[in-house]
Amino acid sequence: MKHRIIPAIMSGGAGTRLWPLSTDDAPKQFHALASESTLFAETARRVRGELGGVSFLDPIVLCNERHGPAVRSALKEAGVAPGAVVFEPTARNTAAVAAVAAAVAAERDPEALVLLMAADHFVADTAAFHAALERGAPIARDRIVTLGVTPDRPATGYGYIKRGSPLADGVFAVEAFREKPDEATARSYLDEGGYYWNGGMFLSHPRTLLASFDASPDIRDTALQALAAAVRGGGEIHLGAVFSEAPALPFDIAVMEKTTRAAVAPCDIGWADIGSWDEIWRLSAKDAAGNALHGPVAALDSTGALLRAEGVKLCVAGVQDLIVVATRDAVIVLPRSRAQDVKILKEMAARL
Amino acid sequence: MKHRIIPAIMSGGAGTRLWPLSTDDAPKQFHALASESTLFAETARRVRGELGGVSFLDPIVLCNERHGPAVRSALKEAGVAPGAVVFEPTARNTAAVAAVAAAVAAERDPEALVLLMAADHFVADTAAFHAALERGAPIARDRIVTLGVTPDRPATGYGYIKRGSPLADGVFAVEAFREKPDEATARSYLDEGGYYWNGGMFLSHPRTLLASFDASPDIRDTALQALAAAVRGGGEIHLGAVFSEAPALPFDIAVMEKTTRAAVAPCDIGWADIGSWDEIWRLSAKDAAGNALHGPVAALDSTGALLRAEGVKLCVAGVQDLIVVATRDAVIVLPRSRAQDVKILKEMAARL
Repeated sequence: MKHRIIPAIMSGGAGTRLWPLSTDDAPKQFHALASESTLFAETARRVRGELGGVSFLDPIVLCNERHGPAVRSALKEAGVAPGAVVFEPTARNTAAVAAVAAAVAAERDPEALVLLMAADHFVADTAAFHAALERGAPIARDRIVTLGVTPDRPATGYGYIKRGSPLADGVFAVEAFREKPDEATARSYLDEGGYYWNGGMFLSHPRTLLASFDASPDIRDTALQALAAAVRGGGEIHLGAVFSEAPALPFDIAVMEKTTRAAVAPCDIGWADIGSWDEIWRLSAKDAAGNALHGPVAALDSTGALLRAEGVKLCVAGVQDLIVVATRDAVIVLPRSRAQDVKILKEMAARL
Repeated sequence: MKHRIIPAIMSGGAGTRLWPLSTDDAPKQFHALASESTLFAETARRVRGELGGVSFLDPIVLCNERHGPAVRSALKEAGVAPGAVVFEPTARNTAAVAAVAAAVAAERDPEALVLLMAADHFVADTAAFHAALERGAPIARDRIVTLGVTPDRPATGYGYIKRGSPLADGVFAVEAFREKPDEATARSYLDEGGYYWNGGMFLSHPRTLLASFDASPDIRDTALQALAAAVRGGGEIHLGAVFSEAPALPFDIAVMEKTTRAAVAPCDIGWADIGSWDEIWRLSAKDAAGNALHGPVAALDSTGALLRAEGVKLCVAGVQDLIVVATRDAVIVLPRSRAQDVKILKEMAARL
């Protein structure tokens, strides 16, 4: 028997460090960053059809009211019909969203599992991703199975999960969640082994998931009130205003770090939460000179550059390892080694 | 008695090397490049009122049909009323324009001198400029007096004039005109002395100027036919279509290099024919880190950069000696040392 899974695509990210392309009106999930498709469309394509022992039902999308058209457009790009689009009156982080997603999934199919996932993550190996879900599904009836990404470097930008005792083939209890470490600590995790990146993908049965809010019952209860008060129609669910009163906490902190039901399914799926232009350069296809080009761009005698233009022509000569992103609103220029400074540049731009 | 001078502002330049700011529709004279005023307005302000022994009459402007509004706007910016605006049906370089300018000047005041000058040149020292005109004016009745700019470096982008025997205090016959030299030759000119940059500013009586077209009578005759066939009204002179048949030659080559009436008035006026973004950086006011900033621009940890934005925000971090020019149509990024490559980038952009 196949495990039925309802994907819950959470489209709440802002992507400040990918400014000026990523903005409040068009955050990073609605842009083609590492390929020719938007991250949202790639996410939706990753969870459709029947694959191995799992069968995906139509996804639930959870997003900000103003991103409705962008969501419709990205779903159309992916060739995916949504099971429901849930609109949040304000962003309350992922814990409240997870509770809503579980309750909506339970309405649609009481026996299906729900898969919480971000709209803006990158996964290179879809087959390995599906295999991890297949391993995790039997355990996910009574646990919340996190996909634990095998680290390929001592990244300091991600949280880590330490695995505990085995629960099944390729699935473990969680010994501990670790916040983003400094580099020395991250190295020690890799040396020690048994640590995985927390990729923010959670598979569980809705009943199990909702029961796991014991440490944060107010978040769950407010979320369910907002769902009860929702305006529905045409496949859309507009949550009630009470949603804005839910505490704004990440699902990891409100639920996963406190529950006894946490499990981890290690996997090597080429996952990334694309957090900088330098990372996009790393993930992109490049020309013979190591330049990642996107849009109407011309490069002369340049190497190792990320050159991206939207709605404007970009022409560079004689630059090395430089990031240039040009839109009709703003242009940034900085070395790839300083990609984190984009956040500062965005603040400087706001004062211009 | 004061010498009356009718300035003839030739607004025909294209400024390809200052793309993407300078375009066919808005060439460089209509932009504020080295100050807060457009080059055209600065040119017009430089030749008005009574100064020392010279009195300027209202200028004649000679320009392309499509630049009429930009010319009116720049004249208004300068607070200058035009004596006449002459529209060329097509650009035929400066020789034909000079003939028209002389003929129009003669109509307005048969005794006045005419001063041919480009709309897009930079002059730092207006007083020295006026003094040179005052020295040249008595000679200019029967000669064409070129202002010869004292070189401050072995520039390879300008033509040179070698002075001959003295004609009056501070005015000399011309021994020879020299085309743009290579650097070794330019250095030898500076070592030898008596060489000046040809700044393209010519003072003469219209009768003398027109008589000097002996070697290129067809240019003069075609230009005068076009003026005879012109449509006039409201201070505008729209040259007849026959103007397009005039050979397209620079005044220097068609007239100055062949006439026996050439003279040169050496002067040190801080002149430049701004031909590159690197030169604009050189001429601009700079911040403490040596950056020349123009428009909504923010620079973090950057030095020696030319950063210019129009209609778009520009934010840079950690760059050195870089040129970044951003408009809503195009963005260029290149080292200052490669400023000449802008022409190539413009061609590359046309193919995007």
